[in-house]
Amino acid sequence: MAATKTNKRKSASKAKSSAHRQYFYFFGNGKADGDASMRDLLGGKGANLAEMVNAKIPVPTGFTITTDACRLFYDSGMELPKGFDEEMMVQVAALEKATKLTFGDTNNPLLVSVRSGSKFSMPGMMDTILNLGLNDDTVAGLAAKTKNERFALDNYRRFIQMFGNVVLGIDKDLFEDVITKKKKDRKIKQDSSLQVVDLKDIVKKYKAIVQKKTGESFPEDPMIQLQMARDAVFRSWNNPRAITYRRLHDIPSEIGTAVNVQAMVFGNMGNTSATGVGFTRDPGTGANEFYGEYLINAQGEDVVAGIRTPKPIKDLAKEMPKAFKQLRDITARLEKHYRDIQDFEFTVQEGELFMLQTRNGKRTVQAAVKIAVDMVHEKLITKEEALMRIEPESIDQLLHPQLDPKAKYEVIAKGLAASPGAASGAVFFTADDVVNQSSKVATILVREETNPDDIEGMNVAQGILTSRGGMTSHAAVVARGMGKCCVTGAEQILVNTAKKYFQVGKLQIKEGETITLNGSTGEVIVGTVDTIEPELSDEFTELMSWADDFRTLGIRANADIPRDAAKAVEFGAEGIGLCRTEHMFFAEDRVPIVQQMILADSPADRQAALDKLLPMQKKDFKGLLDAMEGLPVTIRTLDPPLHEFLPREEEVKAKLDGLDPRSDTYEEDLEELQHTLKRVQELAEANPMLGHRGCRLGIFFPEITEMQVRAIITAALELAKAGKKALPEIMIPLVGHVNELKHQKEVVERVAAEVLSRTKITDLEFLIGTMIEIPRAAVVADQIAEEADFFSFGTNDLTQMGMGFSRDDVGKFLGGYIENGILPGDPFVSIDQEGIGKFVSMAFETGRATKPTLKVGVCGEHGGDPKSIEFFNALGLNYVSCSPFRVPIARLAAAQAALRQGTPATGKAKVVKAAKKVTRKTAKKATAKKTATKQTTKKAAVKKTPTKKAAKKTVKKAAKKKSGSRK
Amino acid sequence: MAATKTNKRKSASKAKSSAHRQYFYFFGNGKADGDASMRDLLGGKGANLAEMVNAKIPVPTGFTITTDACRLFYDSGMELPKGFDEEMMVQVAALEKATKLTFGDTNNPLLVSVRSGSKFSMPGMMDTILNLGLNDDTVAGLAAKTKNERFALDNYRRFIQMFGNVVLGIDKDLFEDVITKKKKDRKIKQDSSLQVVDLKDIVKKYKAIVQKKTGESFPEDPMIQLQMARDAVFRSWNNPRAITYRRLHDIPSEIGTAVNVQAMVFGNMGNTSATGVGFTRDPGTGANEFYGEYLINAQGEDVVAGIRTPKPIKDLAKEMPKAFKQLRDITARLEKHYRDIQDFEFTVQEGELFMLQTRNGKRTVQAAVKIAVDMVHEKLITKEEALMRIEPESIDQLLHPQLDPKAKYEVIAKGLAASPGAASGAVFFTADDVVNQSSKVATILVREETNPDDIEGMNVAQGILTSRGGMTSHAAVVARGMGKCCVTGAEQILVNTAKKYFQVGKLQIKEGETITLNGSTGEVIVGTVDTIEPELSDEFTELMSWADDFRTLGIRANADIPRDAAKAVEFGAEGIGLCRTEHMFFAEDRVPIVQQMILADSPADRQAALDKLLPMQKKDFKGLLDAMEGLPVTIRTLDPPLHEFLPREEEVKAKLDGLDPRSDTYEEDLEELQHTLKRVQELAEANPMLGHRGCRLGIFFPEITEMQVRAIITAALELAKAGKKALPEIMIPLVGHVNELKHQKEVVERVAAEVLSRTKITDLEFLIGTMIEIPRAAVVADQIAEEADFFSFGTNDLTQMGMGFSRDDVGKFLGGYIENGILPGDPFVSIDQEGIGKFVSMAFETGRATKPTLKVGVCGEHGGDPKSIEFFNALGLNYVSCSPFRVPIARLAAAQAALRQGTPATGKAKVVKAAKKVTRKTAKKATAKKTATKQTTKKAAVKKTPTKKAAKKTVKKAAKKKSGSRK
Repeated sequence: MAATKTNKRKSASKAKSSAHRQYFYFFGNGKADGDASMRDLLGGKGANLAEMVNAKIPVPTGFTITTDACRLFYDSGMELPKGFDEEMMVQVAALEKATKLTFGDTNNPLLVSVRSGSKFSMPGMMDTILNLGLNDDTVAGLAAKTKNERFALDNYRRFIQMFGNVVLGIDKDLFEDVITKKKKDRKIKQDSSLQVVDLKDIVKKYKAIVQKKTGESFPEDPMIQLQMARDAVFRSWNNPRAITYRRLHDIPSEIGTAVNVQAMVFGNMGNTSATGVGFTRDPGTGANEFYGEYLINAQGEDVVAGIRTPKPIKDLAKEMPKAFKQLRDITARLEKHYRDIQDFEFTVQEGELFMLQTRNGKRTVQAAVKIAVDMVHEKLITKEEALMRIEPESIDQLLHPQLDPKAKYEVIAKGLAASPGAASGAVFFTADDVVNQSSKVATILVREETNPDDIEGMNVAQGILTSRGGMTSHAAVVARGMGKCCVTGAEQILVNTAKKYFQVGKLQIKEGETITLNGSTGEVIVGTVDTIEPELSDEFTELMSWADDFRTLGIRANADIPRDAAKAVEFGAEGIGLCRTEHMFFAEDRVPIVQQMILADSPADRQAALDKLLPMQKKDFKGLLDAMEGLPVTIRTLDPPLHEFLPREEEVKAKLDGLDPRSDTYEEDLEELQHTLKRVQELAEANPMLGHRGCRLGIFFPEITEMQVRAIITAALELAKAGKKALPEIMIPLVGHVNELKHQKEVVERVAAEVLSRTKITDLEFLIGTMIEIPRAAVVADQIAEEADFFSFGTNDLTQMGMGFSRDDVGKFLGGYIENGILPGDPFVSIDQEGIGKFVSMAFETGRATKPTLKVGVCGEHGGDPKSIEFFNALGLNYVSCSPFRVPIARLAAAQAALRQGTPATGKAKVVKAAKKVTRKTAKKATAKKTATKQTTKKAAVKKTPTKKAAKKTVKKAAKKKSGSRK
Repeated sequence: MAATKTNKRKSASKAKSSAHRQYFYFFGNGKADGDASMRDLLGGKGANLAEMVNAKIPVPTGFTITTDACRLFYDSGMELPKGFDEEMMVQVAALEKATKLTFGDTNNPLLVSVRSGSKFSMPGMMDTILNLGLNDDTVAGLAAKTKNERFALDNYRRFIQMFGNVVLGIDKDLFEDVITKKKKDRKIKQDSSLQVVDLKDIVKKYKAIVQKKTGESFPEDPMIQLQMARDAVFRSWNNPRAITYRRLHDIPSEIGTAVNVQAMVFGNMGNTSATGVGFTRDPGTGANEFYGEYLINAQGEDVVAGIRTPKPIKDLAKEMPKAFKQLRDITARLEKHYRDIQDFEFTVQEGELFMLQTRNGKRTVQAAVKIAVDMVHEKLITKEEALMRIEPESIDQLLHPQLDPKAKYEVIAKGLAASPGAASGAVFFTADDVVNQSSKVATILVREETNPDDIEGMNVAQGILTSRGGMTSHAAVVARGMGKCCVTGAEQILVNTAKKYFQVGKLQIKEGETITLNGSTGEVIVGTVDTIEPELSDEFTELMSWADDFRTLGIRANADIPRDAAKAVEFGAEGIGLCRTEHMFFAEDRVPIVQQMILADSPADRQAALDKLLPMQKKDFKGLLDAMEGLPVTIRTLDPPLHEFLPREEEVKAKLDGLDPRSDTYEEDLEELQHTLKRVQELAEANPMLGHRGCRLGIFFPEITEMQVRAIITAALELAKAGKKALPEIMIPLVGHVNELKHQKEVVERVAAEVLSRTKITDLEFLIGTMIEIPRAAVVADQIAEEADFFSFGTNDLTQMGMGFSRDDVGKFLGGYIENGILPGDPFVSIDQEGIGKFVSMAFETGRATKPTLKVGVCGEHGGDPKSIEFFNALGLNYVSCSPFRVPIARLAAAQAALRQGTPATGKAKVVKAAKKVTRKTAKKATAKKTATKQTTKKAAVKKTPTKKAAKKTVKKAAKKKSGSRK
């Protein structure tokens, strides 16, 4: 593998000497034009084949047609320009020379495989053609050479079928029907029982199908076959399933695929031949154990497609000890070379080992974490590399429920533990059905085996169950990539897709019935089973501690109740970034009181309801502050439109209609319902998202803000009395004009001073800040910063108003927008950096310019999205806040962002750290300053009121001011 | 009046020599401390009194207490600091010396008036006290001196009543009741029939009321009276009606009022005394005729309050020829001095003339225009000054309907033509009722006489009718200021406020019945009368032509139909800035077709509906383009959410419920209604303003855009064939991402090329641009500008989304926000400059930076608002577009903005001019460039496709591209 540099130079000089781009890279005879660094140009497969050849690893000779050629193909209107085929003939000639075989030769025919291979692995999404070069002449040569006419004919009919389907676009079933009929006629079950005469007839019939469907005879010229196959592979880059896969995996569409043309080797040349796939470590657990499976006398597709269930690779040591030892040896070298787990394909042709492919192995996230941490301990990689290797989003799987081990349940079938986790759901038997039902119920997709057309269904299902296929079957690989619970190869299960049920013995499970899958054990269970939270592995904990070492961005959680707060702390949150107080209002026992508050006709009635809510809210806040043990807790005052708490208009009308005039309480009920109806109608809004909500409520009903502040401050004081720390940060939502914040701040300060004045506590630290979620707020953030201790970006609303996308309605067109390339993705998932991000950066910059100590965070859903975190980290915000379960994801994403943007802390990151420290101090400092000037200043210094006396003074002043303005 | 400069210097030196501010400015004996330039400090009245004294005009001696003192009063907690009263005593002493009268002297008592006077005239809004200085001793002195005990006592009781009400806050009615009872006891009708003995008793009873209500006796010490009166005037600055008035007239609250203390002169000292008010020109028509009214033997308030109907001023020439000549003389000098129409008050005391006040006269807008233009012709003022003197908003009145002179109607009563215009509405008898009803019906406020408490009602009523009072009564003055139709002093009318009707002879008009007022003739009519458009005066046309000379901002109109377009051209619009195509869809005969389009299940069905709409839209556009005669016409593609065209869900449900199963068409009807219901439900949105509308429709249903573009281009081509010019500008609404514009632009260019390719016309000029109305668009305007020929700011939506204020719902809290000072005004009326304006300026600047030739306008409601126009002019936009009726307002506002911001064109304004010129040219230039490169560039050059062949080429390319991307 030391040849890399030399080769690079060689390639460069070749490219230079050539008048145009180099579209072909040859490999064979121990040297290759390309190397592993050339993934952009050669695709992952091509680059790794070149690298292996340079490393003297046995690889079938061949050449790679570059991704440049693919782009050329699309730019030239789906065809390659004149002269391209001539150039390719030169490559074929070299291949013939190296293999001592010849295209179309009746004695020593050259057969090739034609495979796609893009920069990013897209397993099974694009097309492959094997055995290309066979025709009526060469099939005889192959038969003669291999002394196996049946083998040659079987390859030939496979080739025609594959070529017919993939290149010529003929329905597979037409070919399958021929075989099925033949087997029926011959009264046999297995393909392998077909005789030479049968195969000859099948070939004849296949060719007739091609003639009928395309109007032309099957192309006999291997060079024409190769050209057509190459173009078909290029075309397959844009087949619907490839497009879907790329969209799901954020792979750009413009990079194209390379095509690898390699001399065929045959794992199906009898019992000294075999084919297999494997991993250098266990891709499910990450255990450092050789892992894989193989089939004797088979072609590669038989293993991957999961049609025959293969043997575990350890058996190869017994069956083919020499080849096994060589394989162990080569793969160990490959892992060390690539410094990552390798996923490889090999073929043994009559005892001789060929490596067909190696690539970094896909793995479960459990495995990814274990492998990364193990490799750090093995000194193979650095901590930074380990952190960068884990997709933050994937951690999600580690945090989600597993089956409760104490739960009693009956296992009806057992398959392979293809992708860990647990899932319950209603069974459906087609991807379409799953897609249609998944918005209504949790679904499990049940298939005999999955194929790439099922990808949309797999994406929305909770779990996947197949009756066939191994650990590397399509279902298993894709499910692991998606982090989705999956059981494959549950062979006891008989799937009847047409009639929409599956059967295990006498038990029949029909469409819509619920089952549970345990992806970690392969168990299939009828009904729903209790689940429990996962135990986090030591490796995970270690990795997370490294993340904390490298990240500069604070991570908080959004939590409304003590249980969520505790979960957040467990997952490493450094505070609560958003407590939605209204969520407390929705509790069943409180809604009537909240309704009483809303329906009140007078401030006095409203106050009576608020007085009932006060002790409840106080208890809420006390629990939350207590659970966070002195970490900051950002509490937002009431935010949603009031009508959300009221029954819907139709409900009230229905009740009115249903009133019984003979009832004793008829008159009262009537009056009450009419009043409710009136209020419901009054509060109805055309566009509630732009209506009377957020601080607009607190400004109209200051008594609501007052109650909430009273509850918060009282809770904090009670904890203080008990010797506990509490750090509330009171947050005013939906501020668009600085005067709104001023108004609410006055209420907060006044009530806080009043509460404080009634206790012996002389010192309570808290902050007053605001959400930045209205576009206007972003452009006047300098003014708002004057009044705020902190900003928290409400990026949901900012996206909603900034883009004019109602979150509730956007579903109608967002999908179409993304599909049509109008938008790159859902802006509610990853922040729209160039648009909404601009609002964030403007507000952040002008806010900090006004107040360098301003604490700035994010509490929208974007706070838990890795791409958005990268953006927020680059800006230099203090923290992001997300749901407790996303806290580890955010910690890792923040570490990766810091590393990507330069570690240790760059200029910007340093500012963040400094600001973080300063912020806390400032709260005290600012208060101290205020206290010192309290005799002369008009503005009340409430923040950290040092004495009861001072607090009282403040209250008095405020009262006086108020009465003054009333006159 | 040459003394001004000397006095200024004197004042300055005084201020300097004094250790503190100078709170008092004396005037009398032919010289004054202040002058007309000191309105900020002395208020309008005080400054003008000083100016008159300096000009040797007879004015009662006195002093002004400054607005500084008022602010001091408020800053010190509604009281003046120690020492202030001592200083005031020095002023009183000077006044005593100058008048040779003494405060409290039983022989020669000094009596004073105490009047408010702020920088801006606020007629009747604040308090005034007359005859101050009277007490039990001085009343005798006054009687002796005037040899008229009855006169003295009548003044005394008036003073106690006024002081009791204004200063001590005692209900007026308590005093009135005493008089009423006395008159009843004495069986007399008129106050003037009360005898000395009666008045003595009344005074005694008045004093008892004061004692009872305040717990203290009526203050006898004139100095104490003065201090209390002064403070009451200061307090009256913040009485509710003054606050309302300031809000309506945009007068800042912090400037305060001055107080003028003047020696009393008496117009009520018998038949050689008189009092009156007048104008140097007719304030209703602007005619250069001396104008006013007076009362013999009366005090000023009798004229203004409208209690007695006064005589026209020409009668004074006969009754008091000497005083009249002197008055003519003085007022002529005053008008020349102030270079504006003067509104003056005078008193003749026993034959001697005193001027009590002069100020620039309020006038109707007709008069304002005539006076301004006349004064330019008289070389009294410049054209620029003339333009600056007309409040743009006021022009509105000139443009609104008058009664159709051909209409037959019966006049039931006739009053004074107090404020011109015509109005029909339902009558209501209290301001509250008008306020409550005005959202439901057009209203007419009918009162015996109005008072400042009625101001809110007057503001929302269509017109005002009073049965008493003259041309200068409260109702008349305020209505003219508001530009509201008003008839005063219709004495045949008997108003019964309590029973809510009015009577003319035997005719009774009850609350809610409709009448019509003709404010230009004073006629009162039962029922509604047809109205016609006003004829614009020559002076108006001349003034507007001057506005056009000075303004740099283009003015367009928003118009959807040819009739409105014609009106726009008549009013001077230079193009159409917004044609809302959907307004054409709402026509009764089209809605069913539009519904068919929306309810279509397939593109084919939709196309069938669109095919029906096409000829209709083409006709619309042809008419519009024709009416504009080659001026640019900006046509917006379909904008509103589709459900706006469908019936409401309840309606469909009701129809479903009402279906008759026995009907022959039951099955069909059922199916159709169910389908409609389904679509209505599908299209329902939680927040339609943020939903599926604007270009989001055109992107989902490109066939709609296609139809509209086909209609536009075909219309333009048909006009071109007829040798007419047409310049359509196709505008894509609700663009937030550049890709949206790209998508729609492709549709426009493709269809345009296709239409063009089918004609012999080789050359059609049109532009493609976009609305900037989504906040995101403002921050990515640089990208959007790449694709746009023009921007048009949709400031309604920009305000809606930028501030998060649903226009439909904001009413719930906007009023409260403005009242509480959270917002300075309605941001949908005048653009929120610091917030939403920031979006506009950002987008404008980055858009122009990207494309210096970008044409930029505004088509939101703000385009017709003078304050907003000033802002847009300062930015340097090309044009604003507003409703046709606001075009003249916008023209004048634009001229004023240009003048205020520096005329001739400042740097910025120059840029605008340049850009304007370039824009037109550029469209051609850019196209020429595109044409030249059409062989090599991929982007189709459609704008001004020079040949049919080229257009075809473009179409072909686009088609190919499309099919390519589909694969």
